[in-house]
Amino acid sequence: MDVMFHQAFQELSITTRGRGLVEFTGEVEAWIAKNKFCDGLLTLHLRHTSASLLIQENADPDVRRDLDAFFARLVRDGDPLFIHTAEGDDDMPAHIRAALTAVNLSIPVQHGRLALGTWQGIYLWEHRTHPHSRRMTLHFIGE
Amino acid sequence: MDVMFHQAFQELSITTRGRGLVEFTGEVEAWIAKNKFCDGLLTLHLRHTSASLLIQENADPDVRRDLDAFFARLVRDGDPLFIHTAEGDDDMPAHIRAALTAVNLSIPVQHGRLALGTWQGIYLWEHRTHPHSRRMTLHFIGE
Amino acid sequence: MDVMFHQAFQELSITTRGRGLVEFTGEVEAWIAKNKFCDGLLTLHLRHTSASLLIQENADPDVRRDLDAFFARLVRDGDPLFIHTAEGDDDMPAHIRAALTAVNLSIPVQHGRLALGTWQGIYLWEHRTHPHSRRMTLHFIGE
Repeated sequence: MDVMFHQAFQELSITTRGRGLVEFTGEVEAWIAKNKFCDGLLTLHLRHTSASLLIQENADPDVRRDLDAFFARLVRDGDPLFIHTAEGDDDMPAHIRAALTAVNLSIPVQHGRLALGTWQGIYLWEHRTHPHSRRMTLHFIGE
Repeated sequence: MDVMFHQAFQELSITTRGRGLVEFTGEVEAWIAKNKFCDGLLTLHLRHTSASLLIQENADPDVRRDLDAFFARLVRDGDPLFIHTAEGDDDMPAHIRAALTAVNLSIPVQHGRLALGTWQGIYLWEHRTHPHSRRMTLHFIGE
Repeated sequence: MDVMFHQAFQELSITTRGRGLVEFTGEVEAWIAKNKFCDGLLTLHLRHTSASLLIQENADPDVRRDLDAFFARLVRDGDPLFIHTAEGDDDMPAHIRAALTAVNLSIPVQHGRLALGTWQGIYLWEHRTHPHSRRMTLHFIGE
């Protein structure tokens, strides 16, 4: 069946309190609901290189604590391997943590709902130790 | 040139036999062929947080064995760092392995074929040690 | 507002000089400009399993050096864990480095510009030690 499609963009800012995972599934769902998007593809693009986007478990907060603890041990702040140190001990680890995850995600939207599993939430993962305001672009194409 | 577009969704379940990579390129290609999709964008979204989607070599099975062996050594089952342990020694490692890879992929479709390289296959990577049934949403938008 | 959409494909080859990051943001922007794409979604798919696509900082080249140094230490060439060794000591590490990053990216295009942050560039990350020619498919859908 052929239909007419439309698309939309939205800037979204998330304020972080330093290293850790911040869920913002609700903000994305609110944008979908407000615009009455029904079926299509949602893409999120984070405009930074020291934070990332992650889909992970939204039930037990210990999962987020363990994710962050594992990454902190895997990519050590102040590791003498690094020569890019001008912006602080946590800066190069933040770039590496971002490279190990992702800055964009694409999720189908069906019947007005994100095709997420029961336990999936969308997170901004702040990799710097200090608070930041992180900006992303949301894009929807569909019906 | 302007054309009329259409989109489609499909639920796909893959049964795993415990930790390891299961190729399902054929299932995706069969859905494209059955629906006579010609040109567009295919997105796959896995609805779980302890398994992931991966595009990797489909020739030598030793590559999949080595991928799994490397990840098992990098993220140790039962690591005392983890406090989220109620669901088993392999559960938190499964979340981390999923975070290190991805739960969604978008692949162009051109002339009815996925734009995969000669040696690329699409895999479900089960990160839990026990067998599971894993569900994903396929989405196509295009002509 | 309903509009007529269009899509386009482009093959792009990037020649690498061995392991390391090669920026090609300019090539993607040139394709967008040449075709006068205004608003839509751009997807890049790399047709290889031992190289990857990465969005990372485009300012200080030390960031790329440190990214590569970290990955070289994390995934050791010639690690005796690996049994897939027929194609060289750097081949299985290249597959793992590709699995830890990604082979496709989707980036919104708004007002004819990629929705990249100020410091974000698009890179091909060559994971093999020898030079290669790497092929990718660009796909645009939108207005």
